[in-house]
Amino acid sequence: MKNKKNNELHIHRLFNIDPWKIQQNKLYTGDDQLISESLTSIGNGRMGMRGNFEEKFSGASYQGSYLAGVWFPEPTKVAWWKNGYPDYFGKTINSTNYIGFDIKVDGVELDLNLQKPLSFTRTLDLRNAILSRSFTTKINNKVIHVDTKRILSLNDRDIALLEYSIKAINPCRLSVNAYLDANIKNYIGEFANQNKPALFWDVLDVSINPNIATVTTQTKPNNFNIPQFMSTWAMKVYCSQKIKPKLVNGNFKVGYLHEVSLKPNDTITFRKFISVIDNRYEKNHNLNKTAITKINNAYNQGFDSLWNKHIESWNKRWDNIDVKINGNDSDQQAIRYNLFQLLCTYDGFDDRLNIGPKGFTGEKYGGATYWDTESVCLPVYLGIDGAQIPRSLMMYRFNQLSQAKHNAHTLSLDGALYPMVTFDGIESHNEWEITMEEIHRNNTISFAVHNYYSYTNDNNYLFNEGLQVLIEISRFWASRVSWSKPNKSYVILGVTGPNEFEHNVDNNWYTNYGTKWTLKYTLELLKNSQAKPIINKLHVRSQEIKKWTDIVKKLYLPYDKRLKIFLQQDNFLNKDIQPVTSLKPSDRPIVQKWSWDRILRSCYIKQADVLQGLYYWYSNFSTSEIKRNYQFYEPITVHESSLSPCIHSILASRTGMLDKATEMYERTARLDLDNINNDTKDGLHITSMSGSWLAIVHGFAGLITTHYKLEISPQLPKKWNSYSFKLHYLNHLLNFEINKKDIIVSKQDNKLLYIWIYNKRYNMVESLRVKTYVQK
Amino acid sequence: MKNKKNNELHIHRLFNIDPWKIQQNKLYTGDDQLISESLTSIGNGRMGMRGNFEEKFSGASYQGSYLAGVWFPEPTKVAWWKNGYPDYFGKTINSTNYIGFDIKVDGVELDLNLQKPLSFTRTLDLRNAILSRSFTTKINNKVIHVDTKRILSLNDRDIALLEYSIKAINPCRLSVNAYLDANIKNYIGEFANQNKPALFWDVLDVSINPNIATVTTQTKPNNFNIPQFMSTWAMKVYCSQKIKPKLVNGNFKVGYLHEVSLKPNDTITFRKFISVIDNRYEKNHNLNKTAITKINNAYNQGFDSLWNKHIESWNKRWDNIDVKINGNDSDQQAIRYNLFQLLCTYDGFDDRLNIGPKGFTGEKYGGATYWDTESVCLPVYLGIDGAQIPRSLMMYRFNQLSQAKHNAHTLSLDGALYPMVTFDGIESHNEWEITMEEIHRNNTISFAVHNYYSYTNDNNYLFNEGLQVLIEISRFWASRVSWSKPNKSYVILGVTGPNEFEHNVDNNWYTNYGTKWTLKYTLELLKNSQAKPIINKLHVRSQEIKKWTDIVKKLYLPYDKRLKIFLQQDNFLNKDIQPVTSLKPSDRPIVQKWSWDRILRSCYIKQADVLQGLYYWYSNFSTSEIKRNYQFYEPITVHESSLSPCIHSILASRTGMLDKATEMYERTARLDLDNINNDTKDGLHITSMSGSWLAIVHGFAGLITTHYKLEISPQLPKKWNSYSFKLHYLNHLLNFEINKKDIIVSKQDNKLLYIWIYNKRYNMVESLRVKTYVQK
Repeated sequence: MKNKKNNELHIHRLFNIDPWKIQQNKLYTGDDQLISESLTSIGNGRMGMRGNFEEKFSGASYQGSYLAGVWFPEPTKVAWWKNGYPDYFGKTINSTNYIGFDIKVDGVELDLNLQKPLSFTRTLDLRNAILSRSFTTKINNKVIHVDTKRILSLNDRDIALLEYSIKAINPCRLSVNAYLDANIKNYIGEFANQNKPALFWDVLDVSINPNIATVTTQTKPNNFNIPQFMSTWAMKVYCSQKIKPKLVNGNFKVGYLHEVSLKPNDTITFRKFISVIDNRYEKNHNLNKTAITKINNAYNQGFDSLWNKHIESWNKRWDNIDVKINGNDSDQQAIRYNLFQLLCTYDGFDDRLNIGPKGFTGEKYGGATYWDTESVCLPVYLGIDGAQIPRSLMMYRFNQLSQAKHNAHTLSLDGALYPMVTFDGIESHNEWEITMEEIHRNNTISFAVHNYYSYTNDNNYLFNEGLQVLIEISRFWASRVSWSKPNKSYVILGVTGPNEFEHNVDNNWYTNYGTKWTLKYTLELLKNSQAKPIINKLHVRSQEIKKWTDIVKKLYLPYDKRLKIFLQQDNFLNKDIQPVTSLKPSDRPIVQKWSWDRILRSCYIKQADVLQGLYYWYSNFSTSEIKRNYQFYEPITVHESSLSPCIHSILASRTGMLDKATEMYERTARLDLDNINNDTKDGLHITSMSGSWLAIVHGFAGLITTHYKLEISPQLPKKWNSYSFKLHYLNHLLNFEINKKDIIVSKQDNKLLYIWIYNKRYNMVESLRVKTYVQK
Repeated sequence: MKNKKNNELHIHRLFNIDPWKIQQNKLYTGDDQLISESLTSIGNGRMGMRGNFEEKFSGASYQGSYLAGVWFPEPTKVAWWKNGYPDYFGKTINSTNYIGFDIKVDGVELDLNLQKPLSFTRTLDLRNAILSRSFTTKINNKVIHVDTKRILSLNDRDIALLEYSIKAINPCRLSVNAYLDANIKNYIGEFANQNKPALFWDVLDVSINPNIATVTTQTKPNNFNIPQFMSTWAMKVYCSQKIKPKLVNGNFKVGYLHEVSLKPNDTITFRKFISVIDNRYEKNHNLNKTAITKINNAYNQGFDSLWNKHIESWNKRWDNIDVKINGNDSDQQAIRYNLFQLLCTYDGFDDRLNIGPKGFTGEKYGGATYWDTESVCLPVYLGIDGAQIPRSLMMYRFNQLSQAKHNAHTLSLDGALYPMVTFDGIESHNEWEITMEEIHRNNTISFAVHNYYSYTNDNNYLFNEGLQVLIEISRFWASRVSWSKPNKSYVILGVTGPNEFEHNVDNNWYTNYGTKWTLKYTLELLKNSQAKPIINKLHVRSQEIKKWTDIVKKLYLPYDKRLKIFLQQDNFLNKDIQPVTSLKPSDRPIVQKWSWDRILRSCYIKQADVLQGLYYWYSNFSTSEIKRNYQFYEPITVHESSLSPCIHSILASRTGMLDKATEMYERTARLDLDNINNDTKDGLHITSMSGSWLAIVHGFAGLITTHYKLEISPQLPKKWNSYSFKLHYLNHLLNFEINKKDIIVSKQDNKLLYIWIYNKRYNMVESLRVKTYVQK
């Protein structure tokens, strides 16, 4: 089903449809191999990797193996430096290759790019989080069959296990080197280009003895006081035949070389046990010792035992988070795939970590933290996990409050400005239009405080860490607004909204509305007696409160009276407003086809901007108001951000445009599986793919949570027979099932919970059943 | 008079006041040495150089020797590439050092940084364009006295002459190597930094024989199809004593090494004859031959003869251009210095050349063509030269029309967009805010057509080259405007005006007004029967004319009815308007002290924007209108562009604010002589210093030229007794003298000329005298 045009969408599907796995049945080359490498990425929150082959592959491939939180600051290169520019751009970096096996058959190296396989299957098993391959190939007239499988253990996050089995169909002489390779390079970087990849690591130590091989590497020094990362990989190798391996050590690569003659149908199996310890978890001088202890323990515990524990952990996870879609395996596969990849990337076990837009699946966007985390991922984690993962995310931002204050100070502003891109809280993007102007991100953080509290009722957090974050963000805004004499109101000048196809605009509605909301929410909390300690700690003065109150009252919100819509920014209607449908196909995507100035002065919107706000603060607007704005803005939105379609899907669902909602859902849900944006080869859209869960739960099911009010208004997409999902809410674990007739809600406890369905309140104890509303 | 605070101005004066020269009487070190190197730059339009010492100087120094029109395209480095970005940034490059003498006294190298001189004088003689030095120093207890002088011949532009005389005070053994050195580096460049200067040249050939030494170099290959430049330097050396020199040849450096023993009061004199030929003037394979022929001819003609011809040429030049100020030597020195440096940089002898903002005096801004040429230099050349130099400038732009069309096409627009920065007509700046948005520059080109015609009545140019330029610029604007429904008018969205402290604004008044003017002027010319051939050649359609007419009628010009001022851009008054005087000294200059976002959203204006327009199209506005706008905008203008004060000086003069005008004049006129912007060490502000002539002639004298109308309204700055200047106008050469009593106008011919003085028309034949108006 390659290259099919579907509603103007470019569909390029390389894997079979299946509810619980993705599978390819042929070997791809070129970009398709890169896409399938991205799609078969796995991770355990602590580390992750692309679906690279274990053996040599001389065709197109991005070798990528990443450690969470391990990054490098690359000096910012710009044409003209401006004050306030960050000194560096942070990026996660590729690290030691520990999956590798060099295989030779009768002295000829196995390389599927040269010896095209007779059969080939690669499978990512979502339920069990196992990546496997199975192929038969002929090398110099000798046929062999290979089976491989690997996991990154969810049970012990420092452990990876790989199995590599070779069956000889013809008699042959086999040599297998199971290795660790510290010769690592990055493909993307200010200093990297096609001819010269960037090198970010120094190799400190490489050693091997008959039992254990280790590699220790350290990130290169930098001029920005960013700590150097150090990591040790330890490896033990098991072989099903008693062969004494040769120890290979040279050029930063160590391995166990096994040589054996195989008879027809002989099978030989290798198992690699890998442990990885980095200096985020252990002192530098203990890294080696700890890695060795770890790997000895793992080896003694046994491959099968560890393997099964990993599967158990994933199965238990699925019991809590699974979304079932009956009637459409393609949509079913997509939502499971997306939840799988999201949890491979981040599950909150370490609150110093966060969610890179491409997770562990590629180098682009540098694996750093973006506002994506709070805007699309947090709401999913709140739903599927309850308090633990969301709390880690909230603590991440709280722990970076002093850095956020530094960012504000850099721009001569008060309070805290959370960064556009960061690893450690310090801004590390490097376009002024983004870092200095796209400050709406601050309100995503404040809204997250509210959102988190709505689901968890975590007073302790709210009136301590949460309130501190809110106060410092409020201080930022109070110093950032200015007074407009002609408007007789406060204004926010010179910003970039979520729509990055506009820069340096005045009074972006989304930014202004979010600012007003933030100040109002903060002021409300400050009235609560529980706020006292923090008021004292942060020296909140009555003058400040007065100023904030004044801003809430007099902050300008651009509105067009004639069209009755919120204006994306001042003078937006001065643009030549023409629908996206008036564009020629050759103009799309405009970011690739048009000059930047043409994009900037056009009416076209990259991603939800006003509509993003209507989704966040939904309950503050009437349905007709939302629909009117949707109908004005959606036709001029090109959705060239992967974050855009899910917001539109949700609003379309909620305003009775179910077909549009379904179209937008598919665009979100199968973004990578169908390579819709034609960039999956660079890695997966980890953060935006979580929007597909939102499109189902917040969209189709119409879930709205404000504090102590849980609402749903479910609809059923026409292609589906039924769907069900779990929801954590105020310590309840609920299950929702929506079929053509009924909505069945059940929960595991028997405490009373009010729930609004189609705007009617129900008192729920264990379960209830309501008729499904069907659009006429 | 160092570091004196004067009206908030930072004055750092290193040279003595003198009407006809600049002279320093001590050796400076560090930044002061760099500043004095910049200030003692010389040039002859074809080549130029900083005032570097001939002998070794181990202290701070930027070696800089430049060939007009010889440049290198450096690949653009930006954080995030956007469509429409130029591929490269063009820059003039430092080239072979031909001034050098290595001097040793008793084996110890002369280096004034180590042997502090007993006396030291460096003099730039403006009248004769001679740079000389005279110093006494002690090396290992041996005192020597040195006299040097050099010229870049105005008479034969490929020739440089240097004289280096050494007088022994004590007996000593002297060694002198007169050399050419092709080991050349650049200090500024995308790839250069303090540790690693950029290298742009390959040395093709270095040779020496007893008569002549030559060096041939070629710019390194580039990936942008920019032709490689090749140049040969040939040298002959004369020595006053009959010494057979050793031929030195190694490491891309060739020289004649003279060794001699001197008795007390013995003087030995060396004269270097240099010729430079590059492949802009001669075929590659002839370079060497031509350079040798040239230098032999020069040598045969004799040093003194060439030297005197150079002086004659400069004296003749001064007769035509001199501005005399009686009563203030500092102001007198400044205007002569500025005219001197302008003419060293460019005198139109080759219409492929143009005027770099730093001329031949430094590497910054890359010696390329900016809109400075038409905005401040052309009006000066029109006044001091008449038709020849201005015509070269006009032909430069006409010859680059097809490149300007390419630039427009790159941005998906019709017609021609002249570049912000260029060598060959292709845009080569690299910030989107500037290249894509600062499109007002196009109207500077169209206004230049009108301006040129007003002074020259060159119908032939106007209805051929000029009209083609105007039509293509008009086409650009017709494709760039868009229709605003709410405004019921055409708008120009997403621009940067002359004030580069704003980006991506809508309806910049200056841009819109200039566009309207351009279209109107083009339409007027098209009605003339002489326009027919070009209408046919460029296929101007009646539809186009209709559209342009409609735009002229309906182009939006932002205006505030309450304040009765033109608005710099839409919503400008939404800013927090506070005068510059409210800023703390520690905030200035804001471009160095403030973050970029703070600058963008502040009210502060970098340089004249609305006022620039009021100066250009002065006659279209009433004096009270201009004064009102001046009084609104000047107080919020920080003048952080060197192009700003002169415009303000002119408008202040014309609206009766003579003291303000004088203050602004001094800021323009002594910008480099007093290092006012604290950046003279990087090179001189060649283009903006020409603004001082405008401040006198267009400002104090109130000269306004529209076609067939010559107006003056002279005033006398309080500090001056009188001033006089020359003016070329419609083939007349006029002389104006303004003293406290009278204005005396005279001219060399006796044809009738109408002249308006203080709004009264006079019929002038040979001369006339009018009473000077004195402000109460």
